[in-house]
Amino acid sequence: MRKLLMTPGPFQVPQEVLNEMAEPLIHHRTAEYREIFKEVLQGLKVVFRTQNEVIILTASGTGAMEAAVVNSLAPSEKALVVMGGKFGERWGEICKAYGIAFEPIEVEWGKAVDPKEVERRLTPDVKAVFTTLCETSTGVAHDIEAIGSFVSRSGALLVVDGISAVGAVPCETDAWGIDLLVVGSQKALMIPPGLAFVAVSKRAWERIEKVGRRGFYFDLVKSRKAQEKVDSAFTPAISLVIALRKSLRMIQAEGIEQVWRRHATLARATRAGLQAMGLTLYSAAPSDSITAFVSPAGIDADEIRKRLQAGFGIYIAGGQESLKGKIARIGHMGYVSAADILMTLSALECVLLQMGVRFEPGKGVRAAEEVIAHASADRR
Amino acid sequence: MRKLLMTPGPFQVPQEVLNEMAEPLIHHRTAEYREIFKEVLQGLKVVFRTQNEVIILTASGTGAMEAAVVNSLAPSEKALVVMGGKFGERWGEICKAYGIAFEPIEVEWGKAVDPKEVERRLTPDVKAVFTTLCETSTGVAHDIEAIGSFVSRSGALLVVDGISAVGAVPCETDAWGIDLLVVGSQKALMIPPGLAFVAVSKRAWERIEKVGRRGFYFDLVKSRKAQEKVDSAFTPAISLVIALRKSLRMIQAEGIEQVWRRHATLARATRAGLQAMGLTLYSAAPSDSITAFVSPAGIDADEIRKRLQAGFGIYIAGGQESLKGKIARIGHMGYVSAADILMTLSALECVLLQMGVRFEPGKGVRAAEEVIAHASADRR
Repeated sequence: MRKLLMTPGPFQVPQEVLNEMAEPLIHHRTAEYREIFKEVLQGLKVVFRTQNEVIILTASGTGAMEAAVVNSLAPSEKALVVMGGKFGERWGEICKAYGIAFEPIEVEWGKAVDPKEVERRLTPDVKAVFTTLCETSTGVAHDIEAIGSFVSRSGALLVVDGISAVGAVPCETDAWGIDLLVVGSQKALMIPPGLAFVAVSKRAWERIEKVGRRGFYFDLVKSRKAQEKVDSAFTPAISLVIALRKSLRMIQAEGIEQVWRRHATLARATRAGLQAMGLTLYSAAPSDSITAFVSPAGIDADEIRKRLQAGFGIYIAGGQESLKGKIARIGHMGYVSAADILMTLSALECVLLQMGVRFEPGKGVRAAEEVIAHASADRR
Repeated sequence: MRKLLMTPGPFQVPQEVLNEMAEPLIHHRTAEYREIFKEVLQGLKVVFRTQNEVIILTASGTGAMEAAVVNSLAPSEKALVVMGGKFGERWGEICKAYGIAFEPIEVEWGKAVDPKEVERRLTPDVKAVFTTLCETSTGVAHDIEAIGSFVSRSGALLVVDGISAVGAVPCETDAWGIDLLVVGSQKALMIPPGLAFVAVSKRAWERIEKVGRRGFYFDLVKSRKAQEKVDSAFTPAISLVIALRKSLRMIQAEGIEQVWRRHATLARATRAGLQAMGLTLYSAAPSDSITAFVSPAGIDADEIRKRLQAGFGIYIAGGQESLKGKIARIGHMGYVSAADILMTLSALECVLLQMGVRFEPGKGVRAAEEVIAHASADRR
């Protein structure tokens, strides 16, 4: 059965990108690779909307999160961490591992942080604010533009986990004043997991130089020096960098703003479809990259997930931690089409029917069709 | 022009392994992936000759080196580091980054460490001995079996960088008492760079639990807990793990001991060939995975490297740091055949002829042929 990955990451990878990885391996210290690497570094800046250097690390996204923490804060320095989900909490766990005196800003799961609450907590001794653009565990989008408007005027760095969002939804790294933007490869960038990125502002470099604690593998200064010579500090995941050149070309051919519009439309269609089926959206501030919905009363969300997988080859994710069995999460970022959304919603209707959920079959798909049809009409 | 990677890593990847990476991406939290992951964890034990758990990290080999350091030593604890090359020195650099009081055991580049010198320096306060199986920068093999014979009886852990050796030359992890064995993916394991491995002994786990400092991304305890549930602590480089299943199957089909014999023969052929051309081997204790030779008087080794690449599509490596221009390094590990060696030596003869080096053309290739022909006869 053909499979469709509609998970919040890893997500689908275009076949033409996968094919790049089946080409004979080349060495990274060759003119051929350097050309590719240079193009990738430039392409990432376009997608991340930044003039800042983008450091490429061979690691999962969490590795890049650790790089952001360990390079920019000395032990006992104070940071604010916006919680509200598994990945907000991860910032806190990393800070803890490195002895950073972080203060959690608690946010109810499923809600976005109130920027005013961040502003209120932003005392002069805070050196960094850690937050998330899209919280993968809940599908919530935090208002980074609003948070950036005052953090950038403070002495603190704004550090954003953009892993499940950048390349799918607007992220104006420079205009919003994001000092350290962390991104992973396996989501909207349309390649498999294994690479992670950190876009570092001038202000962040100044602080990094001052802090002087950098670990070794995640030492951003060492990576920066290597990249200045179009090189990597350590042997890079060559195949993934080459795949990334291809996917960045695809993103740029479509145009990043059009990519954002596509995601906005498909997310709206997904939400409209789910709601028309009588389902409740979990997030009060949904990101256009992930849609989480609450399982109908008496129905195990994991059973929905399993049936979609077994019967239709469609992979969505369940809830994590306390949300296990209660919500399901549909990823729609990167290589996602209107057809993928319609197929997923229709298959979901079948599963709900099988499970005896009462709703009007076809209503969800129709609602999505209407969003998609009108959005296409708008573009003409 | 068809290319042949004869570098000391990354090395060639079989096409059937590359093809695995062009298959549609699967999610890592599925039964399908877990089966693959389980097989890979088992296959690595076979190749590493160990019953110890092997932790898989998404990182370059250096990331796994850092994991070995940060998990097993507290700040100010004492370690011995066998130097003698760029990668021996890297152990020292990582120790330094983490405040470990390491004592370098200086070894002349191109020479192997004297195990007696390690034994002499192994005072009771030493908590770990860091060394290298094959020093990539010089092609030297250190005698880990001899070092293990006394370190395993001491209170210190034996930590070995086996990146450019394991899977090519004998490495009896358990029999030699290696407590932390670090391996990379892009050498004898025949897949592209992006995964790294640490095989951890019972003794090492006990120490790790006691030390309690682990960083975050490279926290071996967290990875161990995830792997016990056939999971990864962070999103793994799925494509590379799947490629690794294929390459481990190939290694096991050939049989690891036969793989070692193949490398021994091809290394002997390479050395015989180079010496018959009148070239001097750089290493006094050459590893069967890498052969370094000294450039003839008045000849820039980098020019040899460049001509092999431009004229024949054959990639070898130059010398690093103070050896730049003075030596060249031929990798022969993993997916390497007798034909690859004969082709490389013959092309090298052409380049030396072009460059006006005086020697009897064909003599190097003939010497290699004799080694290979007789080795094949032995096996019949």
